[in-house]
Amino acid sequence: MNNFRFCSPTEFVFGRNTVKNTAQLIKKYGGTKVLILYGGRSAVKSGLLAEVEGNLQNEFIEYVKLGGVQPNPVDTLVYEGIELCRKEQVNFILAIGGGSVIDTAKAIAAGTPYAGDFWNFFERTVAINRALPVATILTIPAAGSEGSENTVITKTKGGLKRGTGSPALRPVFSIMDPVLTFTLPANQTAYGITDMMAHVMERYFTQTKEVEVTDRLCEAILLAVIQEAPRVLQEPDNYEARANIMWASTMAHNGICGVGREEDWATHGLEHELSALYGIAHGAGLAVMFPAWMQYVYTSGIDRFVQFAVRVWGIENVGDKKEIAGKGIQALKNFFISMGLPVDFAALGAKAADIDRLIETLKINSGGSLGNFCKLDMNDARAIYEIAAGLRGCN
Amino acid sequence: MNNFRFCSPTEFVFGRNTVKNTAQLIKKYGGTKVLILYGGRSAVKSGLLAEVEGNLQNEFIEYVKLGGVQPNPVDTLVYEGIELCRKEQVNFILAIGGGSVIDTAKAIAAGTPYAGDFWNFFERTVAINRALPVATILTIPAAGSEGSENTVITKTKGGLKRGTGSPALRPVFSIMDPVLTFTLPANQTAYGITDMMAHVMERYFTQTKEVEVTDRLCEAILLAVIQEAPRVLQEPDNYEARANIMWASTMAHNGICGVGREEDWATHGLEHELSALYGIAHGAGLAVMFPAWMQYVYTSGIDRFVQFAVRVWGIENVGDKKEIAGKGIQALKNFFISMGLPVDFAALGAKAADIDRLIETLKINSGGSLGNFCKLDMNDARAIYEIAAGLRGCN
Repeated sequence: MNNFRFCSPTEFVFGRNTVKNTAQLIKKYGGTKVLILYGGRSAVKSGLLAEVEGNLQNEFIEYVKLGGVQPNPVDTLVYEGIELCRKEQVNFILAIGGGSVIDTAKAIAAGTPYAGDFWNFFERTVAINRALPVATILTIPAAGSEGSENTVITKTKGGLKRGTGSPALRPVFSIMDPVLTFTLPANQTAYGITDMMAHVMERYFTQTKEVEVTDRLCEAILLAVIQEAPRVLQEPDNYEARANIMWASTMAHNGICGVGREEDWATHGLEHELSALYGIAHGAGLAVMFPAWMQYVYTSGIDRFVQFAVRVWGIENVGDKKEIAGKGIQALKNFFISMGLPVDFAALGAKAADIDRLIETLKINSGGSLGNFCKLDMNDARAIYEIAAGLRGCN
Repeated sequence: MNNFRFCSPTEFVFGRNTVKNTAQLIKKYGGTKVLILYGGRSAVKSGLLAEVEGNLQNEFIEYVKLGGVQPNPVDTLVYEGIELCRKEQVNFILAIGGGSVIDTAKAIAAGTPYAGDFWNFFERTVAINRALPVATILTIPAAGSEGSENTVITKTKGGLKRGTGSPALRPVFSIMDPVLTFTLPANQTAYGITDMMAHVMERYFTQTKEVEVTDRLCEAILLAVIQEAPRVLQEPDNYEARANIMWASTMAHNGICGVGREEDWATHGLEHELSALYGIAHGAGLAVMFPAWMQYVYTSGIDRFVQFAVRVWGIENVGDKKEIAGKGIQALKNFFISMGLPVDFAALGAKAADIDRLIETLKINSGGSLGNFCKLDMNDARAIYEIAAGLRGCN
């Protein structure tokens, strides 16, 4: 086990009718002038935005609003938000939505008190030492951004999709009412489930030895998600299934699944190029890239893949290790397929002919190497894209 | 799943040579005049106390010291600590030790800024709204107090053992170096392991339905502990095994295993009377009382006991539920026995003839009822003590 520091101070307020606590919580964390940030249709249509506004008005909390955050959120709205926060002297940001809204809120929160260009944080030339407090009302369980210190933003010019993080970006509170997710369409539900599983797997696949507690926690989240996913897809308004999926998304990414080990994150790097190029959903890209990555790397740490197969997918631990590992990877693929997800380039709408372009931006974004389970260079990355495109078999 | 609030803001600094960060962390959390609280022999003998003092002196942090905390910590030392903190204008408490030292530190932290008698907090007639910041250097993985908001103190007069809690009591940081636990004797190691398993099981055994994520997290901690326990007992200086056990103790009790469900805590209530009366180790008492409690209540929620048997102990899920559940309880008992622990009154040195006395104080401490999985009255409690004493069989 590696040395680590872990601190997850976010206050999670979970359950039915918890949105009514919004104003009270904002006051608790010192907010007096709030930016309400949201996406679009659903927050307005569902009445959630109006409910929150009413709640703040009742408590005489001033606010301004900014909508229009899109999936794969972009820098332009961050600049707009920063300008608005400065002009209106906002001291608190409330994100209503999923990962895209929350990530945008975090970028605005870091950029507002910073004199330079906020993109420096994503170039990682400047560390984020302070930020406006951010809080969330989560409507899409997926990114785990409601409990994490991370944010991912795409620079419109050049399509660079970059992530950064800082303890200063942990939300001060997150309100999580599973009822708000009842109206999520099946595909978005499935993308979200894939994203949370990927957050666990990016941590689970490690060369760090002797991390039994964290291993078991990772497996716990995966097992729970595997059980609840079909329920939530078949019964979108099943409160209990939605609640378990929602809490799993947070536990998958608040850090408890990663402490004490080297994490990987190659697959997120590979996927970010796909969603940046095609504007596809991050979860859809992950469903394609994770099995492809696994097929390329599994022989570099076969025991871990055997453990994954046996403990997560219930594969019998008998016979050839490569075969057992392969069955685990296939089980994951089958699970994605069962949720209606793409598992190759064709189904995703990606083209093998674009691999050169993907590698080109990946090289810039990754600095030419990615991953820890296997250190991958651009030749490896190309091979993994080729597996995903059906141009080559696995290792 | 029930609605819940969850916030675990403690900064955990985990791993080898992390004690050197003590002074820097105290500064980060605003401490300028520190009370160093410790037990006795081991902190002095190991050189840990001297190391911490040197660390604080190097950073010009003033401190006073108070030693002598005993297992099953008592009110008298709390009063002494409160007086010392007021006299010396202490604004930060550093606990070096295990649960007894940390719990005493928490009680002092709450009592110092409070004009009344600190015992009111344990009578639960007054809520703890503020406290001096507490930090810990953990040397015994067991109680989970390094990450929890709870404290348990015994009132010398009358032997009342009582617990209370408040978010204000969460340690601001906890330094956890597994090397510090290498010298823990086998019996204390086993008591600690029992305590952390009990913390999970008090949460796991619930009538709340549909808590799959939390169930799996509970099972994860238990599975990891069951794997690491024999290793740590056979190789007391195995860093990796010690590290996993240490982190398990924190995860078992920081709350992630309990959110969204009604918790039980009857067994802790039953045990507290034993350790208060006989001065025995809490973990030893739990090893006796948990199987006895299980044998008395398991028919009130057989499915949960079947799940425990199957998922935690690998019992085959075939045949009669009562039989499967019984095998799970027996597996737990066997596990305690394998660690050299007592599982009945005789081995513990407790006497059936004392059951009347146990019930007498339990009635005062519990208000006459305890538990949630089964609501137990004093007749039930007597029956469970009788099972532990071998006077009757299970239900």
